[in-house]
Amino acid sequence: MNRTHYRVLYGDVDQMGVMYYGHYYRLFERGRGEYIRDLGMSYHQIEQQGFMLPVTESHCHYHRSATYDDKVLIETRLGQVRRASLRFEYEVFRDDAREELLVTGHTVHACVASDTRAVVRLPEFLLKMLNGGG
Amino acid sequence: MNRTHYRVLYGDVDQMGVMYYGHYYRLFERGRGEYIRDLGMSYHQIEQQGFMLPVTESHCHYHRSATYDDKVLIETRLGQVRRASLRFEYEVFRDDAREELLVTGHTVHACVASDTRAVVRLPEFLLKMLNGGG
Amino acid sequence: MNRTHYRVLYGDVDQMGVMYYGHYYRLFERGRGEYIRDLGMSYHQIEQQGFMLPVTESHCHYHRSATYDDKVLIETRLGQVRRASLRFEYEVFRDDAREELLVTGHTVHACVASDTRAVVRLPEFLLKMLNGGG
Amino acid sequence: MNRTHYRVLYGDVDQMGVMYYGHYYRLFERGRGEYIRDLGMSYHQIEQQGFMLPVTESHCHYHRSATYDDKVLIETRLGQVRRASLRFEYEVFRDDAREELLVTGHTVHACVASDTRAVVRLPEFLLKMLNGGG
Repeated sequence: MNRTHYRVLYGDVDQMGVMYYGHYYRLFERGRGEYIRDLGMSYHQIEQQGFMLPVTESHCHYHRSATYDDKVLIETRLGQVRRASLRFEYEVFRDDAREELLVTGHTVHACVASDTRAVVRLPEFLLKMLNGGG
Repeated sequence: MNRTHYRVLYGDVDQMGVMYYGHYYRLFERGRGEYIRDLGMSYHQIEQQGFMLPVTESHCHYHRSATYDDKVLIETRLGQVRRASLRFEYEVFRDDAREELLVTGHTVHACVASDTRAVVRLPEFLLKMLNGGG
Repeated sequence: MNRTHYRVLYGDVDQMGVMYYGHYYRLFERGRGEYIRDLGMSYHQIEQQGFMLPVTESHCHYHRSATYDDKVLIETRLGQVRRASLRFEYEVFRDDAREELLVTGHTVHACVASDTRAVVRLPEFLLKMLNGGG
Repeated sequence: MNRTHYRVLYGDVDQMGVMYYGHYYRLFERGRGEYIRDLGMSYHQIEQQGFMLPVTESHCHYHRSATYDDKVLIETRLGQVRRASLRFEYEVFRDDAREELLVTGHTVHACVASDTRAVVRLPEFLLKMLNGGG
């Protein structure tokens, strides 16, 4: 599991004074980027190996709102890993004493070969990395 | 059903050359805004009546990618209307001869009173409007 | 001169209820994209010819604010064309009876060869196009 | 002077693989937010005192490009403080051994009373804070 922090900008909130619903997906990207980096390789380096992990599905359930200048905590977990896809799960909390849960969500990613743009099996190095193996 | 068109900006696409996954939620907002306007009242005017419709859930399934400078067509439909919530459904197509389906998605909205921020029943004027009544 | 219209989204405005200052640069992109298209070739096609026009300078002066659901009018003009750069100028108006001026701005663009990423002279086809010649 | 770090997201870069020109203004907001916080009061708290500092002018000069996954360093300085306005200056560097300068920019802010939305003198508490006084 990865924990990443983020400070909410003016540019993130809308007229209701709360984070725009679409911006949570930027937080999810930030979270899974750091999750992958923790495993020992950045997503950028995965791309350089010839693979991409485009999002095929995204979902967010909004419980409470992040407001301007809130510090939030993004918790990212790896969900189900299948032959040619994987899933990440996210919880975003307000990062104060009460730690209120703000949103939960997930993304599903296909494994795509950069050259052919075809969906392919997750490569061995990626599986090992995700399994925490060497 | 509302049909709205949008031209994809440089600022919408990412390094893969395709629309960033979170930006489709902006298209959904555009679609439902125009859907509501077609009923005879803008969302802005609903707010001025003392009600807000914050998103409680959002979902998107990505089939194909919109690329830079594509013209896309957003089709928005009203889904289930419940006591204190409603749902919109979206399909985004590439707006050319082939009309490929790019993404499908939905959003769920609570009905909230602006003064108390409490979830409340959909007001009569809104129900009538959504039912196409007078 | 090109005139392009845009409807302000919830996702464009911030907590003050006005368009986020950085989002006007998206409007400028929209305006110059349409300006170039009017000349008979999209920016996308310029890229396919092997040239890019990255922004080297951007400026915006904010007079009045666009608010949620406003329809705005973006007026784009070509500014000075130099050997290896060009300039666009923008005015954004509220698109109602009073036509208030909201912001003015400009962007400067270098001409870059896609293969070498070196700054180069504006190619002949682009100069002709910009001069409205054949 | 404040130094703040930021990791470039997929959602920040465009088709050229570099940060979208308008997104640097989000970095500037992040920088000045932290600059103000360093003085002992967040911008949020300034708003709660009844004052807003809307941007009246923004400028950015692009020297080199931030690319996906780059860590960047935002340096923010206070510029000229006038009766009813103030200016911030920014430099963004790639945060690696070479520390290349990527962009320079500035923003000018009016001091506005929240209740009347009129431009007013900078209040005493803000001047003291900006002067590093007590």
